[in-house]
Amino acid sequence: MPAANRQLIYANTPSPAIDPSLDNGTFKLNTTPIPDNVPDDKVLVRVHYLSLDPAMRQWLTAKRSYIAPVERGQIMRGQSIAQVLRVGAGLQSKYQAGDWVVAYSGWQEYALLGAKEAQKVTVPAGCQPTDAMSVLGITGLTAYFGMMDVAKPKAGETVVISGAAGATGMVAGQIARVQGAKRVVGLAGSADKCEFLRRELGFDAAINYKDADWKKQLKEATPEYIDVFFDNVGGEILDACLARAAKDARFAICGAISQYNAAKPQGPASFMTVISQRVMMKGFIVLDYTKQYPAALKDLATWLTQGKIKRKEHIVPGGLESAPKSLVDLYEGINTGKMMVEVAPVSEAIAVKAKL
Amino acid sequence: MPAANRQLIYANTPSPAIDPSLDNGTFKLNTTPIPDNVPDDKVLVRVHYLSLDPAMRQWLTAKRSYIAPVERGQIMRGQSIAQVLRVGAGLQSKYQAGDWVVAYSGWQEYALLGAKEAQKVTVPAGCQPTDAMSVLGITGLTAYFGMMDVAKPKAGETVVISGAAGATGMVAGQIARVQGAKRVVGLAGSADKCEFLRRELGFDAAINYKDADWKKQLKEATPEYIDVFFDNVGGEILDACLARAAKDARFAICGAISQYNAAKPQGPASFMTVISQRVMMKGFIVLDYTKQYPAALKDLATWLTQGKIKRKEHIVPGGLESAPKSLVDLYEGINTGKMMVEVAPVSEAIAVKAKL
Repeated sequence: MPAANRQLIYANTPSPAIDPSLDNGTFKLNTTPIPDNVPDDKVLVRVHYLSLDPAMRQWLTAKRSYIAPVERGQIMRGQSIAQVLRVGAGLQSKYQAGDWVVAYSGWQEYALLGAKEAQKVTVPAGCQPTDAMSVLGITGLTAYFGMMDVAKPKAGETVVISGAAGATGMVAGQIARVQGAKRVVGLAGSADKCEFLRRELGFDAAINYKDADWKKQLKEATPEYIDVFFDNVGGEILDACLARAAKDARFAICGAISQYNAAKPQGPASFMTVISQRVMMKGFIVLDYTKQYPAALKDLATWLTQGKIKRKEHIVPGGLESAPKSLVDLYEGINTGKMMVEVAPVSEAIAVKAKL
Repeated sequence: MPAANRQLIYANTPSPAIDPSLDNGTFKLNTTPIPDNVPDDKVLVRVHYLSLDPAMRQWLTAKRSYIAPVERGQIMRGQSIAQVLRVGAGLQSKYQAGDWVVAYSGWQEYALLGAKEAQKVTVPAGCQPTDAMSVLGITGLTAYFGMMDVAKPKAGETVVISGAAGATGMVAGQIARVQGAKRVVGLAGSADKCEFLRRELGFDAAINYKDADWKKQLKEATPEYIDVFFDNVGGEILDACLARAAKDARFAICGAISQYNAAKPQGPASFMTVISQRVMMKGFIVLDYTKQYPAALKDLATWLTQGKIKRKEHIVPGGLESAPKSLVDLYEGINTGKMMVEVAPVSEAIAVKAKL
């Protein structure tokens, strides 16, 4: 084990775009020793896979939001899949070296964490540990509650998903199908992603919003208008879908990735449709549903093992330093499926208890 | 009785503002004979008070909406308080001359109407026939369902109403108080209207959105943010209220009078708050609630007679010709309370059965 722990510190406020350079950019590298002593109520973990999430840009902005911003000078906040290396005396009934955990480690290679910050991964049959950061993690749960509690697609309805090839969107679309949606339509940012949605996930239509005629394609793909829209993107895409809203449509507003870096956000100009079609739009945050996670994870694991939901991971190599650039890439939409940075390969893991 | 019936015909599409001139403007005057023969299934009515409603501008636009547009060449659509003059043979068990009705007459002085288009006004004790076009009519019902079914204010909450001195807004604010709201705040377009809201209706605060510092006033008037927003105005006001939304706020989107004449409508730029504060926004149309009208009218009549809801009418003199200019004035916001055009004064009524 090396003696040094490398960390990425939030150094400079984005203005408004994230600067991925480690030389006076948004983040800077810091090196500290790996702790020798593990306190009684902590575990020492090694981070293997960092999660990259669209919400991260919002955490860097000191606005009233659902979660306190990351302060400059702090380690960048983030979830990871990590392995327990050493266990404090008070936690030895709970963890042992080699356990895999979902860790609230932030962007660093090693972390000392309390029990609440290191959730042991139990892997349902047919699933894998990294699922705990995608279909069986926050992104899958986000898709689940957005669909099951907010949008509530019904049999026979037309459901449209934006950011459909992202970690949340692809699960949201598949849940809509499980719920009996008649047409599932995805919006994504490349021909490859659209091909993936149609071929591998069985979407009825997938539209590349970078095509010049994407609005025409959207119209053709939704001949009976849009009953449910699950939005990860906001901006122009939300606007176009609002203009196609069916009577009594439900719009689950999950994210607005197109707007997070915008100095001057755009509201949906087709807002009048909210009245004429009695549209219900509702924002939601997965953290409000923590009590319902166990039941939701049971459904998601069932669908995953039955093949009704398929997983897709986008793993970036290159270690911790890849994280800032990968976050910029996430906003550029390069990923299909859940985006993670490989901080340390599985081959470096110790005494593996769970198959990764 | 004169032999001629004057009518206002929808002549030219607004571009985008309504042109009130009767000489090649949006409407033109037409004169036809008053029918001599009343068919068996009709009544002949004389219009006394025409209702002016913000929705009218939308009816002139051939867009997908909750109601078919008025076609050019047709009589302008509109509700009125009218008096039955003659009754067809088949309707004599239902009406008699002198009855007051809420009439779907359109903009004309006389009309032949079927039973569905002429609803007899029953006046609860302590109420008056014109109430059937305000607190006990569509505007009161709109306020009722927007509050009771969509926004659902709870005891202790902060409720904000835009267009608060209008026919719907003033009832909405008073219903919020009946429901136990802690703070009721109105937005209106003049110091007089604000004075009326505070003094006569007991609003906790009223803000003139034409004041340079209205956003600052809004902030000060909502120290615990906004739990419920009942919106009649849209545009910049909706945007400012969205920026002040409390967690789990409900926004009942009733109308967007600021946008109806806009060539390029504006969406709410503070849309991100929908996510961060889990805001629910829902458009609604009173016509969806027809089955629930009787129960709602019972509540409204009770509150009106108990003085918990106060009425306010803005009656424009000058006969039918005043309607186009008055409609423009409605969008300018000159009225406090329900705006009506007096087509014929009560003194000209025949055999009055109900006190007007």
